[in-house]
Amino acid sequence: MTSTVPQTVTASVLVIGDEILSGRTKDKNIGTIAEYLTAIGIELREVRVVPDEADEIVAAVNALRARYSYLFTTGGIGPTHDDITADCVARAFGVTIDVDPRAKAMLLERHKPEDLNEARLRMARIPAGADLIPNPISKAPGFRIGNVFVMAGVPAIMQVMLDAIGPTLTTGQRMLSETIEAGNLPEGTYASALAAVAAAHPTVSIGSYPAMVQGGFANRIVVRGKDPEAVGAAREAVEGLVAELKLGT
Amino acid sequence: MTSTVPQTVTASVLVIGDEILSGRTKDKNIGTIAEYLTAIGIELREVRVVPDEADEIVAAVNALRARYSYLFTTGGIGPTHDDITADCVARAFGVTIDVDPRAKAMLLERHKPEDLNEARLRMARIPAGADLIPNPISKAPGFRIGNVFVMAGVPAIMQVMLDAIGPTLTTGQRMLSETIEAGNLPEGTYASALAAVAAAHPTVSIGSYPAMVQGGFANRIVVRGKDPEAVGAAREAVEGLVAELKLGT
Repeated sequence: MTSTVPQTVTASVLVIGDEILSGRTKDKNIGTIAEYLTAIGIELREVRVVPDEADEIVAAVNALRARYSYLFTTGGIGPTHDDITADCVARAFGVTIDVDPRAKAMLLERHKPEDLNEARLRMARIPAGADLIPNPISKAPGFRIGNVFVMAGVPAIMQVMLDAIGPTLTTGQRMLSETIEAGNLPEGTYASALAAVAAAHPTVSIGSYPAMVQGGFANRIVVRGKDPEAVGAAREAVEGLVAELKLGT
Repeated sequence: MTSTVPQTVTASVLVIGDEILSGRTKDKNIGTIAEYLTAIGIELREVRVVPDEADEIVAAVNALRARYSYLFTTGGIGPTHDDITADCVARAFGVTIDVDPRAKAMLLERHKPEDLNEARLRMARIPAGADLIPNPISKAPGFRIGNVFVMAGVPAIMQVMLDAIGPTLTTGQRMLSETIEAGNLPEGTYASALAAVAAAHPTVSIGSYPAMVQGGFANRIVVRGKDPEAVGAAREAVEGLVAELKLGT
């Protein structure tokens, strides 16, 4: 598996929100973060979605930050009473949390001092020792503490925060991937041969992914690995068996 | 919180797949299952996404099945070498796994006996003691063992399996929800008043959810609970404060 390849940097994502668990809101951030991390050489290893409940959030933050190089959270950093992420992260790290002058200054770029009420000031409450993540869209910042990055849940804002975080991350060897279109070739016709190819190319991971289009299957075989030569060799082997089987059909 | 309301049935979802973690494939099943469970009175409490690695899958299955009424998994039940979900679930339950005659019969509805090769027969490998979940689309069944439901990852197939499972589930009191459109009313203007409403209506949960449309905010306040009267009263209180603030703007 890829995790045995050296120079690996791992990550996890924690989505905080009853709205996702209720199905009312469909998460868009998981896929965005996954694609982003893969592109820069960080392996997303686990995702969790938990409700807006302090004990659940604290437990998940501590489990994930201990296990992976980075943890990225989304959601729960707004001004309303149900936005409890910052307090939960402070609790997880055992640090205090209070209004941060730097964060307050950012909010003042958008709000007049007289409009910076108690609720809005909640968005400036940052755990002690955290660095801020700028938010050019609505100003209320995210923050980084240790290996945990706390971002907004609104996809457009999460994206700009991720763009700001990206350059600061330690990245590993980039995962290369090649896709071979098996089309409507049934998985069952190439599964055995593909397993043999996988066994013969142990330094790459090979997956077969069925999808449906107009009621028929559109299968794709994906070769993933960090060594260009190994990935190329496996790709050629897979292309060979697919071409052979297509001739056979 | 809703979890303190009696007659609660809880659930978790485990998405199995490197493809989701790599960002190459965007998950659609989490939102579908979340909406489905909410509609029938089951509370989705946690979602996890893990890679196609046996130890990770087994650990997640055992953690989630122990904690929630039900666990629904998606992905990894095809015929290829990277489809290891059934074996991992058998390992999690400590039971044997072998070709199940009932599952083999289902596969024979689609494949001629001479086409039912070793790879396809893998799709008939079912943990001992499991019940099958029919798959009208491609025949390869999912299965239920204990409180764990193992479903396909292809959204169309997952959906028909979910439809088959639904009527067999024990459901709790249905969660009612009411949405109040706050429109472009900034969260910061109603956060304090909303917190007071939430405190005054402890048997419901009230959330404020910002979204962006054409660069501006489109905020929604959602009241959720199981007692129609309590939800209605909270909704009226929220509508009242929103109307008042809109007049003020």
